[in-house]
Amino acid sequence: MSAFCAAVDWGTSSFRLWLLDSTGAVLAECRGAEGMATIATGGFGPVLEAHLAAIGAAPDLPVIACGMVGARQGWIEAPYVDTPTTMAGIVIRAKRVSDHSRPVFVLPGVAQRTAGRPDLMRGEETQLAGLSGREGRRIVCLPGTHSKWVSLDGGQIESFATFMTGDLFAAIAAQTILRHSVAEPQGPFDGGCFMAAFLAALDRPGEVTNQLFAIRAGSMLDPAVGDDGGSALSGLLVGLEFAGAIARFKSVAALTLVAAGRFREIYLAACEAADIAVAVEDADALVRRGLFAAATEILS
Amino acid sequence: MSAFCAAVDWGTSSFRLWLLDSTGAVLAECRGAEGMATIATGGFGPVLEAHLAAIGAAPDLPVIACGMVGARQGWIEAPYVDTPTTMAGIVIRAKRVSDHSRPVFVLPGVAQRTAGRPDLMRGEETQLAGLSGREGRRIVCLPGTHSKWVSLDGGQIESFATFMTGDLFAAIAAQTILRHSVAEPQGPFDGGCFMAAFLAALDRPGEVTNQLFAIRAGSMLDPAVGDDGGSALSGLLVGLEFAGAIARFKSVAALTLVAAGRFREIYLAACEAADIAVAVEDADALVRRGLFAAATEILS
Repeated sequence: MSAFCAAVDWGTSSFRLWLLDSTGAVLAECRGAEGMATIATGGFGPVLEAHLAAIGAAPDLPVIACGMVGARQGWIEAPYVDTPTTMAGIVIRAKRVSDHSRPVFVLPGVAQRTAGRPDLMRGEETQLAGLSGREGRRIVCLPGTHSKWVSLDGGQIESFATFMTGDLFAAIAAQTILRHSVAEPQGPFDGGCFMAAFLAALDRPGEVTNQLFAIRAGSMLDPAVGDDGGSALSGLLVGLEFAGAIARFKSVAALTLVAAGRFREIYLAACEAADIAVAVEDADALVRRGLFAAATEILS
Repeated sequence: MSAFCAAVDWGTSSFRLWLLDSTGAVLAECRGAEGMATIATGGFGPVLEAHLAAIGAAPDLPVIACGMVGARQGWIEAPYVDTPTTMAGIVIRAKRVSDHSRPVFVLPGVAQRTAGRPDLMRGEETQLAGLSGREGRRIVCLPGTHSKWVSLDGGQIESFATFMTGDLFAAIAAQTILRHSVAEPQGPFDGGCFMAAFLAALDRPGEVTNQLFAIRAGSMLDPAVGDDGGSALSGLLVGLEFAGAIARFKSVAALTLVAAGRFREIYLAACEAADIAVAVEDADALVRRGLFAAATEILS
C-alpha cells in the first residue's frame, strides 16, 4: 500500500520517523540522534530529507512533526496553545515550514497560564492525542527528564504539572556529593532500596533533601550498604513527584502510565507502593497515533 | 602577649588559622584557599608551616585543627564520635599527627547512627562547642553546602539533620534546564521572589520539583518575569529545608542561626516568613571559641 504521510517525533535529543499508510499502519521507520540540540540553524531540512530518502519516500509526501522542532529555537516556531484545549485546537494552529519544497507541518505545544502554575509541554500533547476518543476523566503520567502529569477529560487537556524528576536525578548524580554514591553507568535497579526511599518521600516530602544526604552518610557509616545509591535517589525523587501529583490532582485512584523500559519498571513499582491502579500505554504507539490523527485532519 | 596555640578550621575548600593567646584573644590570623580538596597526600604539613611561618609562630607552638582535615582523605583520620556527645567526648578522641615535628591535634567529627537517620558532621561540632556553657535546649541552624540543624541541650549534641540545600542549588543552577533561568554569576537577592517561593515550599513541600519547573515555564510565558530565577530557586530549596527541619524537630519556636553574608540575609528572611524568633551567631567566632576550649583541655 502506498504512503499517506511521514510522522515525525522530533525532540531535544532524538529523532523518530514513521512512514504511515492511509489507515495509520507503519510501512517503514527510522530513528536518529539528530535531536534539536545537535542541529545548527538551517540544518533541519537536510536531516529530514536524508531520513526520508533512506526509506524511499516520494519527494511530495507530506510530513507531520511534533516536539521541540516547533520551539522558538527549532525549525519553525509553532506558538503554544493554552489550556484547556483539544487535539482540534492544537491541529488548527499547526505551522507549515515555508522555505522547504515538501509540505512539512509542525504541531504546537501546550501552555498553562494559570497564576502560580505556569507550565509547558511540547510533544506530550501529541501522545495524549493518541489516547483521545476514550471517554471520561483520567490522570495520565508521562515520566521522563521532565515528567508530566495531565488531567485529561475525553480528548481535552484540562490542566497539567511538570516535575523535574529525571533532570534532577542526572544533576544530583553528577554534581553533588552523591556523585560518590551513584554508580556510573547506572547500576541494576534495587527494588527494596527504591521502595523504602519512595515511601519515605511520599510520606514526608519535606525531608527529602535530608534523606538525600542520608544516602551518602549511610554508605559512609556502613560500608555493607554499598555505593550504589542510584535506586534510593530515584526512589526519593519519584516519591516526591507522586507526593506532589497526588496533592495537585487529589484523586489519583487510577492512572494511565505512558512509559517503556526502565521508566516503566520504576513507575509501576511506585504505583504499586502508592496503591494506585495503573494501565500502561506505549509512548511510541501513542505519538504515532496522535500524529496520524493530526495528518488526517490537516491533509483532508 | 605570647601565643598559646594556633587554631585551624580546615575544610574541603578553605583554610583559616588564628594565633590565640592564653585568654583566647586573637594575636594574628590568616586565610587561604588550600582546602583539603586541593592538597595532595603529604602536603598538609608544608601548607600549615608556611602559614605559621608567615605570622611568625614559634616552631613548637601547638596547633588544634577541626574540619575535613580529620576525614579519611585528610591529614590524619579522627574517627567520628557518636551522638549524643559533648565537647569533652569529642576532645578526648582528638588525634595527634604522628609524623610532624610540631604538636598538631585534629578533632573528630560527629556521627548519628540512628536507624533511618544516618548523618555526619565535621567542623560544625566545633562551632557548636563555641556555643556551649549556655543553658537549656536549643535548635541551631548552620546553613551551607550541607546545612545542619542540630538539637543542642546545654553542651550536648543530641541529634541533627543535614539538608543538601547549597549543594542542590549549585547543581540545579548549573546542570538542569534552570541553567537558562539562573543568572551567572549570582544576581542580586530578590526578597519578594524568595519569599513567595519559600512559603510555597514550606506549605506544599511535595510540589517543589514542579515549582522548580515553574520557574522556567514562568519566565518563558512572561518575559517580563526576567531571567533571574536564582532567588526563587533559593526560596524553594530553603523552604524545603525549613519544612523538613520543622517536621523533624517539632518545635522550632526559637532558633540560633550561625551564618554570615548572603546566608545570613537569606536565612533571616526565611525565619521571618516562617515566624521563627532567631538569634544570630558568627561562625568564625564560634569555631575559634570551640578550638580554644579544645586547646585548653588538651594542652593543660
